[in-house]
Amino acid sequence: MPNFKLTIEYEGTNYHGWQKQKNKSTVQGVIEEAVKEAFKTEIHIIGQGRIDSGAHALGQVAHFKVGKEFAPLALRRALNSLLPRDIRIKNVEIVGDDFHSRYSAKLRHYRYLIYSNDGPSVWLRRFAHFYPYRVDIEKMYRATNFLIGEHDFSSFQSSGSIVRNPVREITSIEINRKKIWNSFPELIMFDIKANAFLYRMVRNIVGTLLEVGRGKITPEEIKRILELKDRKELSSPVPAYGLYLVEVEY
Amino acid sequence: MPNFKLTIEYEGTNYHGWQKQKNKSTVQGVIEEAVKEAFKTEIHIIGQGRIDSGAHALGQVAHFKVGKEFAPLALRRALNSLLPRDIRIKNVEIVGDDFHSRYSAKLRHYRYLIYSNDGPSVWLRRFAHFYPYRVDIEKMYRATNFLIGEHDFSSFQSSGSIVRNPVREITSIEINRKKIWNSFPELIMFDIKANAFLYRMVRNIVGTLLEVGRGKITPEEIKRILELKDRKELSSPVPAYGLYLVEVEY
Repeated sequence: MPNFKLTIEYEGTNYHGWQKQKNKSTVQGVIEEAVKEAFKTEIHIIGQGRIDSGAHALGQVAHFKVGKEFAPLALRRALNSLLPRDIRIKNVEIVGDDFHSRYSAKLRHYRYLIYSNDGPSVWLRRFAHFYPYRVDIEKMYRATNFLIGEHDFSSFQSSGSIVRNPVREITSIEINRKKIWNSFPELIMFDIKANAFLYRMVRNIVGTLLEVGRGKITPEEIKRILELKDRKELSSPVPAYGLYLVEVEY
Repeated sequence: MPNFKLTIEYEGTNYHGWQKQKNKSTVQGVIEEAVKEAFKTEIHIIGQGRIDSGAHALGQVAHFKVGKEFAPLALRRALNSLLPRDIRIKNVEIVGDDFHSRYSAKLRHYRYLIYSNDGPSVWLRRFAHFYPYRVDIEKMYRATNFLIGEHDFSSFQSSGSIVRNPVREITSIEINRKKIWNSFPELIMFDIKANAFLYRMVRNIVGTLLEVGRGKITPEEIKRILELKDRKELSSPVPAYGLYLVEVEY
């Protein structure tokens, strides 16, 4: 039975996140309908993980098994012709029987975009968070030293979440300024890679790093917050529309 | 009576163009409401010209006279706090009594964005036109030679339009490739400057230049089309969402 791996790009603005929900339009739900239509049979697709409502993806991964053949390029074309313009299948691949989009994933790469100059941009309102304070990137980098490595990230998960094991390993955090276009304000890009993330972990980390960047808390306080293992101490997360799942590595 | 000049940036996706219309949401209508609210009095604003439904502006200009004082920076802040996030006042200036956004304008600069690679982009669907053919920029440049200068542009106006004087002067057309971001396909930017434009003139010119670029018509046929002074000969215009009013010079 062929095992199909899909790599998906989408703008999340008009969806209630990735995960299928009753009576709500979600990216998984819409893609599943297109897959069913292409194969003319009932199919369930499995994503590598949830993505917040309003957040975006450059490389979400999902897989499904089905007892029918379909050439990958033809399937990609068929799905893209069925899907709305804010979801696009970037790649279709037939993978080994033991490939699982979630359990085989080794590394997730998320990006968060903010900008601080010139007031809110009409062009970026769905794509990046306007943070109206100057931030010190050096200070934020110092704070990231306490986050990199294997830690219990309970302090950075959504309040009320319960997971069996809140230990995750962050392998890198990069923070870069980028001016991509005259008509856009300068962006600050946070690129965070980990084996996996807790719910809201990226948005909570970026929110806290920004407080370090503007001088409300010291870089060293990140260590204390992490050791508390309690979400209650934390500042509010940054909004979902600045968040991108960039890539999943297997 | 102070004469206020507004410079306005907006994303046109959610509006029926610039020009005020009954029972339709337009950019002029929304800004006029904000201006009335700021001054607490009935005010009519005058734009430099219409902009198509769905097209965008980096620097639309409007003016209005009112018998009340308001410091320009404070007015800019007040208007931006009243306006929705897809419209932003970039600048407020008090100008001489004889300034008129439309009649004083000397040059209009429009930009049109297309891309041809990788299929339709989820990120650019409101901002640039996907044109699924390879285009030869050199050929398009040769065609622009016939358009630059003072001409009767009847062939490039919207069918059914009647204007007293269809002569306009195009001062420059530039065509550039631009890669602004890894996650975006390469853009082709058409920058067209003229003293003024007929209705749909930019979109008709770009549509015709693209046919030259993909080899459907020769550069020299542009000369013939122009001399016909008849819109009927023309290929369809490119869609409005790739169009930007960049700047108006006075």
